[in-house]
Amino acid sequence: MRSPVTPDPEVGQGPVDEFDWIARCLAPLAAGAPGALGLLDDAAVVTPRPGYDLVLSKDALVEGVHFLSADPMDEVARKLLRVNLSDLAAKGAEPFGYMLAVAWPAERGWDQRAAFARGLGEDQIVFGLSLLGGDTVSTPGPVTASLTILGWAPHGRMVRRSTARPGDILLVSGTIGDGTLGLDAARGIASDLTGPEIAWLATRYRRPEPRLALIEGLREHASAAADVSDGLVADAGRIATASKVALSLDLDQLPLSQAAAHWLATQPDQRVARLALATGGDDYEIVCTAAPEQVKPLIEAAAAAGLDLTPIGRVEAGQGVVVFEAAGLVTVDRAGYRHP
Amino acid sequence: MRSPVTPDPEVGQGPVDEFDWIARCLAPLAAGAPGALGLLDDAAVVTPRPGYDLVLSKDALVEGVHFLSADPMDEVARKLLRVNLSDLAAKGAEPFGYMLAVAWPAERGWDQRAAFARGLGEDQIVFGLSLLGGDTVSTPGPVTASLTILGWAPHGRMVRRSTARPGDILLVSGTIGDGTLGLDAARGIASDLTGPEIAWLATRYRRPEPRLALIEGLREHASAAADVSDGLVADAGRIATASKVALSLDLDQLPLSQAAAHWLATQPDQRVARLALATGGDDYEIVCTAAPEQVKPLIEAAAAAGLDLTPIGRVEAGQGVVVFEAAGLVTVDRAGYRHP
Repeated sequence: MRSPVTPDPEVGQGPVDEFDWIARCLAPLAAGAPGALGLLDDAAVVTPRPGYDLVLSKDALVEGVHFLSADPMDEVARKLLRVNLSDLAAKGAEPFGYMLAVAWPAERGWDQRAAFARGLGEDQIVFGLSLLGGDTVSTPGPVTASLTILGWAPHGRMVRRSTARPGDILLVSGTIGDGTLGLDAARGIASDLTGPEIAWLATRYRRPEPRLALIEGLREHASAAADVSDGLVADAGRIATASKVALSLDLDQLPLSQAAAHWLATQPDQRVARLALATGGDDYEIVCTAAPEQVKPLIEAAAAAGLDLTPIGRVEAGQGVVVFEAAGLVTVDRAGYRHP
Repeated sequence: MRSPVTPDPEVGQGPVDEFDWIARCLAPLAAGAPGALGLLDDAAVVTPRPGYDLVLSKDALVEGVHFLSADPMDEVARKLLRVNLSDLAAKGAEPFGYMLAVAWPAERGWDQRAAFARGLGEDQIVFGLSLLGGDTVSTPGPVTASLTILGWAPHGRMVRRSTARPGDILLVSGTIGDGTLGLDAARGIASDLTGPEIAWLATRYRRPEPRLALIEGLREHASAAADVSDGLVADAGRIATASKVALSLDLDQLPLSQAAAHWLATQPDQRVARLALATGGDDYEIVCTAAPEQVKPLIEAAAAAGLDLTPIGRVEAGQGVVVFEAAGLVTVDRAGYRHP
C-alpha cells in the first residue's frame, strides 16, 4: 500500500483524467478507512460508534473568493480540511472522516492536483482522519471544493450554539484578528509590519490551526460554542441569536498576537482598528460561553492542552452583541455580521 | 412553521444575501430534522439508528458541464438530489438527510435561488428526507453544487460493487439510453423523433427517477449493484473491476423505451446506435448481479414495486466487459468508460 504522502511516480505525465486522479492520488487517502471501499464503490459505509452521535459540517472554498489563485494547492487543501475541522472542534466532536467534492478547471494539471492530494494526505496524518468518498468534476470556472466532515460526540453531548445562558462568561481561544491581517499579508498589501510578522500572519491566514485540543474541555465545561470563521463579533452574534440572549464583548480584552499588537500600535484610530480585528474573518479560533464556576476549569483544561482561553465578555438577557471598550460603547453595524 | 413548498412572500426583493437565503429558503427544508438545529449551528447532529450502518455518497453538478445554463433551477436542484438518491438506491440504503453546498454567481437572483430551494423542498417530500446543513458561497464562475447524501442500511448489508461472482446473472432496471437521447432532446438537437418523444426524453434527462423501490429487493437478492450514471457499459465495468470478474453484456437484450426504440429504428448502423445507448450517461437506472436462483425473486420483488429488471448478461471469471450481440462481438473502447 502506498503511503498517503508519497506521490505516484507517474503523476505529472500527460493530461489529467478524473479516474486516474482518483486512483493515483485520492485512493491512498482512503486506505485507512475500510468503509471507503478503496473509492471503488458508489458510496461509503460507516458503522456507528456505540454511545456516540454523528456530527457533520460542510464548508466550501472557491478560488478568488476564499483563497487566492496563486495559493499553492497543498495549502488550499489543508485550509479546506482545517476550516471544517474547526467546526467540529467547536462542537466538541472528534473527527474521523470526510467526503470531498472538487471541481477542477482544465488548466490545473497533474502537479497541482497531486499537490492538493498531498496537502490532504499530510494533514490527515496530523489530525487522524481518512477520506471516505466524494466526487471529482470538471468546471469552466474557478477551482471549487467542498468537504463534508464527520465526527463523533458522546450521545447528547455535542456543544451547541443555542445553549448560552444569561450570567455565563464569554471566552475566546488563541488570538483574534490575525486572519484578516494575514489576508492582507498574503496579498502583499500589509504595511507597518516587519518581514517575519508578515510571513507569520500569512501562514495564520493560509493554514488555520483547528482547536481540536479544546474538544474535551468544551464538552465538560462550556455552555455553548462556535468557531470564529466570519469574525469574532459575527460568530459570537450567532451564539446570541441561537441562544436568544445578548452578549457584551469588551474590545479591551481582545487577545492579540505580537504581530497584531504591533499593527494596532501603528494605527491612528484605536477604536476603528480594534473593531477591524474583532470583525475580520478567518481566525478559526473558538468563541464559547461557560457558567462562572466553569470558567476556571475550562481555562485550565485549555492550558493543559497548550491553548489560551481569554474571557472577553458576558452573556446577558436580551438580544444582539454589544461591543464596548474603556472609552464607551462601540456601535457595530449589521454589515459587520455579514460576509463581504 | 412555514411549509417547505411555500416560498417566503418577501423572496424576490432586493439583492441576495447568503444568510437571508439560508434563513428564508433553506431553513424550512431543515424543519423536519431536529439534528439540523434550524441551520443555526456550525454542525448537524445525527443519532445513529441501532443496528444500521450509515451510507454516504456525494455527487456534484456544475453549470455548463452537468446541466444547461438555461435549465430551470428547481429542476437542477431536483437533479442534484436525485443523482445522489440514485447512488443510495443502488446500495440498498434508505435516505434520511443531506448536506448541501452551493456556489452562486451574483447574477442568479432571488427568483432562481428560491426556485432551487423549491425544487429541493418538493422532492424532499417525495423521497422523505431533510436538509441537515451545509454552506452557501459566492463564485465568479458557474453555479456549482454538491450534495452529501446520508442513508441507513442494516449493519453489514449495504450492497457493494465488489461482490459479484462468476456464474451470476447481470440485470438492469428500467430502460437504457434515454439519458443520452434526453440530453440531445433538452439541447434541441434530437432529430427523427416526435414532439411527445422529445418532451418525454428531455424530462428523463432533467428529472431522473432514483430507483429507491428496489432497495429491499437488492438487499435480499442481489450480489452486487451500482447506479447507471456514466453509462451502462462504464458502470457495469466498475462492478467488474471492483469484483475482479468479467461481465458479458448482450446488446440485443438492452431494455429500451418506446422513444429509444423509435430512435434506434431510424439509425443507419444498428450496432453503433445500440452501443451509443449502452454507453451514454444519465440513465440513473440500477445495474446489478444476482446468483441464478435469486434472479426470479429479484425480478418479482422489482415487479411488486412497479419496476422492470431485465437480464442482460452474465458474470464470468476474468476481467473487463465484453459486449456482444447476435451478429458477434462488439469492441468497446476504453474511452467508453470515461466521462467526456
